[in-house]
Amino acid sequence: MTAKKFAGIIPPLCTPFADDFTVDTESLRRHIEFQLDAGVHGVFVLGSSGEVAFIPDAQRRVVIETAVDQVAGRVPVLAGCIDMTTQRVAEHVKTAEAAGADAVVITAPYYTRTHVAEVDRHFRLLHERTALPIFAYDIPVAVHTKLDRNLVLDLAEAGVLAGLKDSSGDEAGFRFVLKGRRERGLDQFSVFTGSELLVDAALALGADGAVPGLGNVDPVGFVLIYDHCRSGNPLAARREQERLLTLFGIVDVAPPSRMGRGSAALGAFKAAMKMRGFIDNAVTAPPQLPLNDDELLRIKEKLAETGLL
Amino acid sequence: MTAKKFAGIIPPLCTPFADDFTVDTESLRRHIEFQLDAGVHGVFVLGSSGEVAFIPDAQRRVVIETAVDQVAGRVPVLAGCIDMTTQRVAEHVKTAEAAGADAVVITAPYYTRTHVAEVDRHFRLLHERTALPIFAYDIPVAVHTKLDRNLVLDLAEAGVLAGLKDSSGDEAGFRFVLKGRRERGLDQFSVFTGSELLVDAALALGADGAVPGLGNVDPVGFVLIYDHCRSGNPLAARREQERLLTLFGIVDVAPPSRMGRGSAALGAFKAAMKMRGFIDNAVTAPPQLPLNDDELLRIKEKLAETGLL
Amino acid sequence: MTAKKFAGIIPPLCTPFADDFTVDTESLRRHIEFQLDAGVHGVFVLGSSGEVAFIPDAQRRVVIETAVDQVAGRVPVLAGCIDMTTQRVAEHVKTAEAAGADAVVITAPYYTRTHVAEVDRHFRLLHERTALPIFAYDIPVAVHTKLDRNLVLDLAEAGVLAGLKDSSGDEAGFRFVLKGRRERGLDQFSVFTGSELLVDAALALGADGAVPGLGNVDPVGFVLIYDHCRSGNPLAARREQERLLTLFGIVDVAPPSRMGRGSAALGAFKAAMKMRGFIDNAVTAPPQLPLNDDELLRIKEKLAETGLL
Amino acid sequence: MTAKKFAGIIPPLCTPFADDFTVDTESLRRHIEFQLDAGVHGVFVLGSSGEVAFIPDAQRRVVIETAVDQVAGRVPVLAGCIDMTTQRVAEHVKTAEAAGADAVVITAPYYTRTHVAEVDRHFRLLHERTALPIFAYDIPVAVHTKLDRNLVLDLAEAGVLAGLKDSSGDEAGFRFVLKGRRERGLDQFSVFTGSELLVDAALALGADGAVPGLGNVDPVGFVLIYDHCRSGNPLAARREQERLLTLFGIVDVAPPSRMGRGSAALGAFKAAMKMRGFIDNAVTAPPQLPLNDDELLRIKEKLAETGLL
Repeated sequence: MTAKKFAGIIPPLCTPFADDFTVDTESLRRHIEFQLDAGVHGVFVLGSSGEVAFIPDAQRRVVIETAVDQVAGRVPVLAGCIDMTTQRVAEHVKTAEAAGADAVVITAPYYTRTHVAEVDRHFRLLHERTALPIFAYDIPVAVHTKLDRNLVLDLAEAGVLAGLKDSSGDEAGFRFVLKGRRERGLDQFSVFTGSELLVDAALALGADGAVPGLGNVDPVGFVLIYDHCRSGNPLAARREQERLLTLFGIVDVAPPSRMGRGSAALGAFKAAMKMRGFIDNAVTAPPQLPLNDDELLRIKEKLAETGLL
Repeated sequence: MTAKKFAGIIPPLCTPFADDFTVDTESLRRHIEFQLDAGVHGVFVLGSSGEVAFIPDAQRRVVIETAVDQVAGRVPVLAGCIDMTTQRVAEHVKTAEAAGADAVVITAPYYTRTHVAEVDRHFRLLHERTALPIFAYDIPVAVHTKLDRNLVLDLAEAGVLAGLKDSSGDEAGFRFVLKGRRERGLDQFSVFTGSELLVDAALALGADGAVPGLGNVDPVGFVLIYDHCRSGNPLAARREQERLLTLFGIVDVAPPSRMGRGSAALGAFKAAMKMRGFIDNAVTAPPQLPLNDDELLRIKEKLAETGLL
Repeated sequence: MTAKKFAGIIPPLCTPFADDFTVDTESLRRHIEFQLDAGVHGVFVLGSSGEVAFIPDAQRRVVIETAVDQVAGRVPVLAGCIDMTTQRVAEHVKTAEAAGADAVVITAPYYTRTHVAEVDRHFRLLHERTALPIFAYDIPVAVHTKLDRNLVLDLAEAGVLAGLKDSSGDEAGFRFVLKGRRERGLDQFSVFTGSELLVDAALALGADGAVPGLGNVDPVGFVLIYDHCRSGNPLAARREQERLLTLFGIVDVAPPSRMGRGSAALGAFKAAMKMRGFIDNAVTAPPQLPLNDDELLRIKEKLAETGLL
Repeated sequence: MTAKKFAGIIPPLCTPFADDFTVDTESLRRHIEFQLDAGVHGVFVLGSSGEVAFIPDAQRRVVIETAVDQVAGRVPVLAGCIDMTTQRVAEHVKTAEAAGADAVVITAPYYTRTHVAEVDRHFRLLHERTALPIFAYDIPVAVHTKLDRNLVLDLAEAGVLAGLKDSSGDEAGFRFVLKGRRERGLDQFSVFTGSELLVDAALALGADGAVPGLGNVDPVGFVLIYDHCRSGNPLAARREQERLLTLFGIVDVAPPSRMGRGSAALGAFKAAMKMRGFIDNAVTAPPQLPLNDDELLRIKEKLAETGLL
């Protein structure tokens, strides 16, 4: 294996639900087709945008199996194995393997107070248990630990990590990882940004790709950014990214006084996905709160403003 | 039901493991007998001290079943149903019900960014699904949300919550809850502190009891504090609590530069439990790190210093 | 010097202003007389409640001079020397010395990112520059550093610190300081709580006294708690403290959506002080926002409810 | 005034001290000449890198006067007016005016717990008091408040703010400010990044310039980045920025276990400045700790590695 395996736009797919909060597999399949039609280079199921924190284990399995079946090898399927500590994550990894995922995505431990030496041990133990490529998922807003950049590079060098999805918002730290990758000759280590509003900038820094939550709503836009960057047209990439900045305003239509930022963002993504015909039902899992009619109207306006409706 | 159901010392039991990290049920049974012999008024399994964040679901079930069987109705068994969001918690509640627990203990949502209105909805939805008494578990160090005191009182008044375990470290806020309980006439709402170094103070403020992690090591000490407080002997209670302050030094024998505070505390509790003969094996679950020989020696010295060895 | 110098109730005096935000010295003098009439055992000027962060240096000097002159030796006057780092604090210490203060109160460095070794050096350097007793002021909500308890005890043992005002809200840590003081025989080291809602509890743990912001509004109440505790009547102390818990509700009449918690608390203290006739003008310094009429009315009701109007 | 007034590389000058921590004006003048020779487009004195938090007021004045005198109108001189609240900042603004600064740089209030409405009032009141252009300084690591991006734009639109120095590390938020500036037609509002490791990226997003602390050590590098970006050579800019990433390693030669991150970074900057002949004395103000010989050696190596020695 000499070629790099993962690159491009790999959206963290939202998980459509029926009214009883079971996975709406038909909508999921349709959503995947919209994504593949848009030219995405992979899909990531059961990430934070996929409401992984809200989905019981049996339903998580359904999500991976459905995605693997629908994608049918056309692009890689990454599966989030999100849980608090090693043994619990290991069970999700086993599920992902059985379901045919191409890679697993794993965060630092959480709920417990941890330490860099424990994060190190966590990833090493999980690597021992699976042949699947492991992506480290750096998401301090959820797990309240920032991955140490030297640890990430050491684990890449040791063959423990195949990639990084950096949703930490620390772009300077991200740059150090890219620099370290080059200096250590870790060409096969894939580095993705989760900063969906800075994809053009991240690609300019040398990132391999992006995992943009907003790609659920407008995958074409992110693929365009990627293509513009690869063809040496940074200004066109920037223009496209700035349109998506406007679109991102949908996550703020519900005010912080009324609901959590998770509810607001995922509710907005799903509402927009429904308006665009990707899924049938915009419901988010409990205890998240639903958007109201006024908020939905403003989402519709944003979609119109950005040429999506 | 007019009498208050829960009061006294209810230690959050550590979960003894075999070397393969399955539950050592024999040690768990023996540990429970030591606790009951010491006069504790209940046991709480699968709390943070019980390494709930580290235990796969099937093994969690074993813990509850073993505890319920061993306790055999002598005191109430509370079971932690610790997970990120409503549906996942609901599955643990179902398990706890099936296993015969007397109450369930539930935190605010975590991993996701939440909101007081969502925390409210979370507890209400879970109450709809179970007849078991629900304790709210306020532990911001783990879930990064502090429970709002007015929400707690409103949920108590609505019959959603049967009790509170406050491990927030916010003693002034705790006092507001106690005051609100009295003013609203919520006599059956049980209020426990998790601040194991301030049990005498919390009881003096009007708390019903305590859930002290250190009770795994010295349950007799905490029962003494409780008895002294009830018999109007605050000075004796304080003396006992101060001895336990010394004992608590065991959680600091491993330095923060070497491991997380969770590893250090749980490793110390388990090591001391083993030295006292409560359990056979002091191992903690991965990715936690083990104490070294020097650290174990210092734990032994602390046990001697406080009259436990 | 064998007797302990500082004990009892030492309120952190609010600083009354004229409409142009210069110090209203006449009101300050009257306020001090109300405090001394109530039996307080010292006064602390230029603390957080004294809006020290808002007052230019020349006006800070006026506050200390006025307080020293008005108190005229009846009780000790402590002066806050609140600034970011050593040299800037040293200038305030010099002013306090010149103005005749009996002790100075100093926080950890802030604005800069600091370290325990630097906090240590900070207090040692300041001690070298003054013969005045130094109180360490532990207030992480303002300076975003928690004082290390072992550092505090080491500095006490080295004669650098004469006392501690603990407004950290960490009552367990406070207890460790009290325990360490006893174990190290540091009888002359004065330990005060700033947790105004837990004064009875702190005294029961062995604290020497309290520095309660709410004492600006009801000094008699806090002196009563102190006297009840000293005369072995904890239940009467608790009853009084619980009345003050109700009174403390004034800090919440202005909602967090409208203004900062500082504006709300200091605005409420000053409004209540004015209603009680202690000061002429309830204005707080910019950029703090004023309370509105409805909020003032609710403060009046709280004063009536707690027997103060 | 139709042209934009501020653009380019404006380093936040370190303040050289004599051994008694008074300002070494001769070194300051020499350092400024090195900066101007390198082609910087302005200088910013008394920022965080200038140890403003450590310098008494009289010495702060010396810094501004010296800089204004030495620069002699060749580029604009921005002066940090860093203090906790409005009235205290106003005094610094008055000093800056008297000393001839071209603009003042002001943070959100700190020490006190504040609110967006109070931050708004803070800047408006200060604007009423001075004709100097005001830059908002967004530096949550120091003041623990993030400036709200809509507030910044509103204040720009109201003519209160002339510019922004964004050291928040939130590049997505920075991009929203740039977008809002364009949409609102605020062409004269200057937007600078303080993210010294992402200057090329920030310029690509549309920023007017940068305020890089590392520019104290290598101003030529940052001017090159600026020039490359303006002449449409992003790859050359990136290469230069990556060299500076390597150089930035000097801030990590002293480990976090030994000193604060402020001591480590400012100590490293000053040591490098001395090695390069810009200043005579690398001492930092108390209570900061000095670097040791081994750490200084590693700084020298980094300078050699990056072509500066």
